[in-house]
Amino acid sequence: MKKEEKLNPELALGFTDRKGDELILKDRLIGIIKQNFQLYGFEPLETPGFEISENIGKFLPDEDRPMSGVFGFKEKNQWMSLRYDLTAPLARYVARNYRDISKPFKRYQVGTVWRNEKPGPGRYREFTQIDADIVGTKNIYADAEMCMLMADTLVKCGLKEDEFVIKINNRKIFQGILDFFDIKDPKQSLTILRSIDKFQSIGKKGVLELLTKGRLDSSGDFTKGANLKKETADDIFELMSADSIIRSQGKYRLSAKTSLFKIENDLYLEGLEETDKILKVLELNEKFNIMTTDTTFKESKINVQMDLSVVRGLEYYTGPVIEAETTNASFWKSSGDPKAFKRIKIGSIGGGGRYDKLVTRFLNDDYPATGISIGLDRLLILLKEKNKDQTVNNSPVIICVFDNEYFSKYNEILQVLRSSNINSEIYSGDGNLKSQMKYADKRNAPAVIFYGEDEIKSGKITVKNLKSGKENSLKVENLANEIKKLIWKNP
Amino acid sequence: MKKEEKLNPELALGFTDRKGDELILKDRLIGIIKQNFQLYGFEPLETPGFEISENIGKFLPDEDRPMSGVFGFKEKNQWMSLRYDLTAPLARYVARNYRDISKPFKRYQVGTVWRNEKPGPGRYREFTQIDADIVGTKNIYADAEMCMLMADTLVKCGLKEDEFVIKINNRKIFQGILDFFDIKDPKQSLTILRSIDKFQSIGKKGVLELLTKGRLDSSGDFTKGANLKKETADDIFELMSADSIIRSQGKYRLSAKTSLFKIENDLYLEGLEETDKILKVLELNEKFNIMTTDTTFKESKINVQMDLSVVRGLEYYTGPVIEAETTNASFWKSSGDPKAFKRIKIGSIGGGGRYDKLVTRFLNDDYPATGISIGLDRLLILLKEKNKDQTVNNSPVIICVFDNEYFSKYNEILQVLRSSNINSEIYSGDGNLKSQMKYADKRNAPAVIFYGEDEIKSGKITVKNLKSGKENSLKVENLANEIKKLIWKNP
Repeated sequence: MKKEEKLNPELALGFTDRKGDELILKDRLIGIIKQNFQLYGFEPLETPGFEISENIGKFLPDEDRPMSGVFGFKEKNQWMSLRYDLTAPLARYVARNYRDISKPFKRYQVGTVWRNEKPGPGRYREFTQIDADIVGTKNIYADAEMCMLMADTLVKCGLKEDEFVIKINNRKIFQGILDFFDIKDPKQSLTILRSIDKFQSIGKKGVLELLTKGRLDSSGDFTKGANLKKETADDIFELMSADSIIRSQGKYRLSAKTSLFKIENDLYLEGLEETDKILKVLELNEKFNIMTTDTTFKESKINVQMDLSVVRGLEYYTGPVIEAETTNASFWKSSGDPKAFKRIKIGSIGGGGRYDKLVTRFLNDDYPATGISIGLDRLLILLKEKNKDQTVNNSPVIICVFDNEYFSKYNEILQVLRSSNINSEIYSGDGNLKSQMKYADKRNAPAVIFYGEDEIKSGKITVKNLKSGKENSLKVENLANEIKKLIWKNP
Repeated sequence: MKKEEKLNPELALGFTDRKGDELILKDRLIGIIKQNFQLYGFEPLETPGFEISENIGKFLPDEDRPMSGVFGFKEKNQWMSLRYDLTAPLARYVARNYRDISKPFKRYQVGTVWRNEKPGPGRYREFTQIDADIVGTKNIYADAEMCMLMADTLVKCGLKEDEFVIKINNRKIFQGILDFFDIKDPKQSLTILRSIDKFQSIGKKGVLELLTKGRLDSSGDFTKGANLKKETADDIFELMSADSIIRSQGKYRLSAKTSLFKIENDLYLEGLEETDKILKVLELNEKFNIMTTDTTFKESKINVQMDLSVVRGLEYYTGPVIEAETTNASFWKSSGDPKAFKRIKIGSIGGGGRYDKLVTRFLNDDYPATGISIGLDRLLILLKEKNKDQTVNNSPVIICVFDNEYFSKYNEILQVLRSSNINSEIYSGDGNLKSQMKYADKRNAPAVIFYGEDEIKSGKITVKNLKSGKENSLKVENLANEIKKLIWKNP
């Protein structure tokens, strides 16, 4: 017989399958996050995957990745695009419904977004974004609320208070510093912003190169610099470093170097004042510790730090910006045993800020907004690592099939387990006992249940713990409790 | 000043926004369904939105809607498509991972699918599908498990046992009847299948027209018929009606008319036997009531009916098929008061069946499979209707802002409410008290909280119930309990 030509079941480039426990954890996190967003008064919104291209722009907000970033689809005379983020559709939604929505409008959205970019290892063209935004208010309390929401959500997801820091800055401070140095060219300003934003990855030397003549990275790629004079670059770096402004006894204070400059323009002072207001709101809450010269990092508190080096890369922010960063043990615990504090260095796990130009493409009105985004994938990696040794085994208990004659007994056992909320099944394949054990093994089942001739004689049921290999004879009525113990990987 | 040209914030055609309580109910249902699928031993799978077009076919499985059905994107020399269902990607996944997956492989998937079809009112080009499948086994118990899963899931979502019926049939019976009449042309067979499948919507007269010369519908469209002779059409209709085969005392029995035909071909008998096996498994479970001539519909049981008119429209089924239908009061309760039993006639809320050719496009191996799909949108409509008068108000309690001087008190109240899991917020907009009340009203807030000069004097907090308009003075410690009562729309 001639063999037919068969297809190759490959994945499309830049896409992946996900399965098992990873998805269960992901669902759990998304559930916790949504519930917490509701607790903070946000309502859910679901916009469609497709938008009219013009309405969300054919480009990504970050100019570094122009045009190519979206999946477009032509229909008659109109282009549709798959959304590349959740902010552009929010703008469209607000502009479309501005008469009906509450003011302010507080919404959250969890959804898939697509980027038509060159895929790389671990870099996919489809991923989940989680956003919460407050639209239509300039009230700085809204920004403080976003900080609280970010921090509280991370804790509810399972991070300890001292496993991350909330860093706060303000684009007005950044702009005020540029104004002070009389830097007016928007392109140069943007290059400076991007340079400072890279501090975590390329360090002081790299940033100073980017601020001046440019930088050649280890792969041989050259990035153009901002062409500042060396002294100006040094000054700007100094002014935008983490400790150029310090809080002390509930007030901000300029560092010795910073105060020398006597920057007194309105933007700069407004930025400082807004940051101060946010910190004052957070201070009311005893869960937070505002890091100052007097009070540094505290364990079992949510630590908040004013850090002028946190600018965020997206161009559109206009006011407060925040970033949630995982703590680096060696930084916070220089005197401690490094092994005891070994943590995964994963950097930012969320961030956001205020942006005032949300709906200007659609409406003449002003719709200032402030929002955050949570990095689900990074959070998943962190929590998977943390939960490794203590998660529940979600795989089903397998009731083996010896003979269909005993089926009503298998069914009885099954009902007992399921009514106790134990994931379980009667083996539904076509194999013999050996195949059934192989199946149970493949499924990572916590236990298999035997009910054969021996068991009929004894009137008991055999439970085999697949981790220890131990068998146990039990009465039906003791089955559920015994199995619940096995389900915890480390009881 | 010249006005800029502004964009029109329209939605792409055939897509929609969803928000608020509808989404909260949707999320809750999906959560319940996923948990129940796990309880039955299914593991989660997430395949990407995009697949290589060739791998999932450029067409929908239903021949009525050929080719045009998908959104395709060309990339270099390869076409990618957005998935139009979750079964085609499952086939690709199984073929790709056949060495690694368990046998049988039990997976569920909840995901968005896209159909590039002409949109109509209430008919969208993007929707959520919920599937569970057992792949790689011919064991008829797997089909029985799918019936149990379907029924149990609907009950856990909030339907009462007697609000739906599980109908069971088998494609082998259908094929056996066609063989008996010597109908061999696959095209004619498919037309007969589709005709029978339309019974619920067009009735006996319509089906008989479709089985013979064709049918002109009320919109003026003509559908070609199967060109059967009138007597053959009458016989086939009779044989495939709901009561042509009856169960009685745990066995199936042919109706008087059916037994006249003496259909004895293997397929027909196999189909009957498989149905019988499934019903025998369900009978072991006291939650189920198998409808027979002796025992008809029972309240507070999950009713199961063998119904030869349930064939399902998709071509690919090869064995048992099931359908979950909402019960029609006037049918089940002809003597009752119609008002007391008024139910929404919504028809099928889920279904599925066995299909044996899952991976034949990729592999030479046999991968028989059986699966179900739950109609989330219809379920949502049903449950929204049912829950109308008793759902929780998810909107936040609004703490009004009189003066920023009292902010620490507002914050104290907020922490009390949130730590009691009451959705709540301090008003974060820029408006006066009137705007704040308007906002609370727009949000459908259950209550607002006042803390102004009067309250400072009395040391109590004012809670205004926005439904009744009543105000209540309370101490902080009594706040949470009092508000929890308001959150239930009908306490």
